[in-house]
Amino acid sequence: MAILSGLRITECAAFIAGPFATMSLAELGASVIRIDPVEGGLDYHRWPVTAAGRSLYWAGLNKGKKSVSIDIKRPEGRELAQAIITAPGPEAGLFFTNFPAQGWLDFEGLKKRRHDLIMVNIVGNRDGSTALDYTVNCAVGFPLVTGVPGDAAPVNHVLPAWDLLCGMTAATGLLAAERHRRLHGEGQLLRIALSDVALAIVGDLGFISEVQINGSARERHGNHIYGAFGHDFDTKDGRKLMVAAVSVGQWKALCKGTGIMEAIRALEQGSGSDFTREADRFAAREAIVALLQPWFAARTLAEAAALLDAERVCWGPYQSFEQLVHEDPRCSLANALFAEIEHPGIGKTLTPGSPIEFSGTDEVPQLVGPVLGQHTDEVLLEVLKLSSSEIGILHDRRIIAGAQSAIL
Amino acid sequence: MAILSGLRITECAAFIAGPFATMSLAELGASVIRIDPVEGGLDYHRWPVTAAGRSLYWAGLNKGKKSVSIDIKRPEGRELAQAIITAPGPEAGLFFTNFPAQGWLDFEGLKKRRHDLIMVNIVGNRDGSTALDYTVNCAVGFPLVTGVPGDAAPVNHVLPAWDLLCGMTAATGLLAAERHRRLHGEGQLLRIALSDVALAIVGDLGFISEVQINGSARERHGNHIYGAFGHDFDTKDGRKLMVAAVSVGQWKALCKGTGIMEAIRALEQGSGSDFTREADRFAAREAIVALLQPWFAARTLAEAAALLDAERVCWGPYQSFEQLVHEDPRCSLANALFAEIEHPGIGKTLTPGSPIEFSGTDEVPQLVGPVLGQHTDEVLLEVLKLSSSEIGILHDRRIIAGAQSAIL
Repeated sequence: MAILSGLRITECAAFIAGPFATMSLAELGASVIRIDPVEGGLDYHRWPVTAAGRSLYWAGLNKGKKSVSIDIKRPEGRELAQAIITAPGPEAGLFFTNFPAQGWLDFEGLKKRRHDLIMVNIVGNRDGSTALDYTVNCAVGFPLVTGVPGDAAPVNHVLPAWDLLCGMTAATGLLAAERHRRLHGEGQLLRIALSDVALAIVGDLGFISEVQINGSARERHGNHIYGAFGHDFDTKDGRKLMVAAVSVGQWKALCKGTGIMEAIRALEQGSGSDFTREADRFAAREAIVALLQPWFAARTLAEAAALLDAERVCWGPYQSFEQLVHEDPRCSLANALFAEIEHPGIGKTLTPGSPIEFSGTDEVPQLVGPVLGQHTDEVLLEVLKLSSSEIGILHDRRIIAGAQSAIL
Repeated sequence: MAILSGLRITECAAFIAGPFATMSLAELGASVIRIDPVEGGLDYHRWPVTAAGRSLYWAGLNKGKKSVSIDIKRPEGRELAQAIITAPGPEAGLFFTNFPAQGWLDFEGLKKRRHDLIMVNIVGNRDGSTALDYTVNCAVGFPLVTGVPGDAAPVNHVLPAWDLLCGMTAATGLLAAERHRRLHGEGQLLRIALSDVALAIVGDLGFISEVQINGSARERHGNHIYGAFGHDFDTKDGRKLMVAAVSVGQWKALCKGTGIMEAIRALEQGSGSDFTREADRFAAREAIVALLQPWFAARTLAEAAALLDAERVCWGPYQSFEQLVHEDPRCSLANALFAEIEHPGIGKTLTPGSPIEFSGTDEVPQLVGPVLGQHTDEVLLEVLKLSSSEIGILHDRRIIAGAQSAIL
């Protein structure tokens, strides 16, 4: 049995935060029903896509879900969707959406159908206005301190970190609310603004108090690790790697592994520094980089790796996505995180499951994304207990649709 | 009552993933005990720090926790720590650590003291080797596709996204395991590797299948939004903003708000494109940017904002951390996410709580970080039921320590 076996979640959402949250719960064993319009949701064609136009992004973020296609522009379709969202069962009645919680998705309206409904509503800003990862990230400071010192141009992140963090925050909130419902019988509405997730983290990491207490703000430090020691280096064979010495242990390992102990002692004495203090390492970062550079330049990545690993130095290679896939054993079947799975209409690819290993419950095997509408009939039959003839009529009236593997 | 009221978690961890996870649960009402060595953990002096040397980072990531100082190098100290970790109570027995789960922190050993212990162990790599956010990020592809197209140098992210995501994944796992224990009476060990969190997300977002199925990999696209339309623009008054048109609705709003509808139609006809298709917008991104640039260059940020907001365009200003703190109403007391709170030894600063709003349970007021060792006596008294004289002896023998506001 998987750890969330039995739990049933319905989702009307698109893009990253909601789909990633519910997929993460599906990877722990929850049953997730994603309801989409017949033509697919807003994210159904999101890039990257295959040569045939199938979205690898959609396939990757909806693994293991049941896909139900309903024409939610028509009242009968909305009625069906509401019935699925609020269907009975002690483990059901959990609903995720990033659409506005109004009209047919109004919480109070849904609550009339199921008094203990738990609804998670992800919004852009707390006032309900729109925001995406890209329009939040620009506002919270990071693009102006990313990249080469001296540059003025903002550098956006490529990883949609705020969306992902919002999703995992929502997943945590859902389980907290499910726990409360189990103990007290009460459902509720959880509301999470993407920009609040970012703002809370900016505060948690000290960026707000840095401005308010210290009267200063973080500057661009390129690839230096702020407040400690860490930087990238070039090897003899044209590779790059990142070295980190955040703790004293890591610092000593680095000095020993690269044989710069004596040069470092001379540097410390000359500058009155003590590099076991992270602040002193940070202050002398350019001088330390200069001491280390020749060592890396004289060695290939493989040679450096062997010597660094022998001293348990904390380091990592820079890898392109191709190098990651082709060369890193962590990104292969050697890592139990992955299985090689055939995705219908897409092909065979290395597919991750949940990154959590559980010692006491079964792990969910790596999952495949659905074909749009693949589970429409199954869900109407099993969750809503409709008869085959009722389902047939809904098909005839085009209120629902089945598997649409041909539709791109 | 807050949603996780009653739950008690013990933590032996440092830096971001663990402390952020448990703090996020404290912000939902859980009671969190952080055990540290008497001199403070590895992260106790982590930058940014105040002029007096107090870590704003530590204060920000340990809000609301009880701080217990124990000399865990001595057997008696370890015995005390183990007793706290495995103390009885149906809501207790939840333990977070990012130290190696061996020796006195071996799961099987701890389990002998409490059979239903839930232990969350965050590690660097699945094989137990060290990794930090910086040494994982370099390996999973993003730094080589971040920044200006044509550049070859890797650009590290500044937000420790993998640490934060690992933390929230761990928090979700903990609540899943607590649910399972409530239903079935069984505890267990959860193991989460930082690099697996990153690898799973790289797979989920389609980067692995892009290489394996499409035989290509993501390139550097600067501040363009991949596969849709979005870019940064300069305004007349020297500000920058980010505009996003991921959905058709956002695209139409942008064209209308900036009055480029006719020019866009001409561009579509000339190139045989249909910009309601995100792929066509992406292909024509440079031409679209060129059409929009003059509009932004002719307006101040405020003028542009008014016109964009009137059409509900999805956009955001680039802001430095100072601008965020001084100018953005979302980062002020106008947003209920924040309260202005005095942090002992640090000062008054805008302090976030949980980004989740709950309609049916009380929200936890914004929390203050502890002084190191502030709760040592309280926890030994209340959790371990030690007497004052027993606690006094432990102090005399320097196995424990109390509040150390003076120690920096």
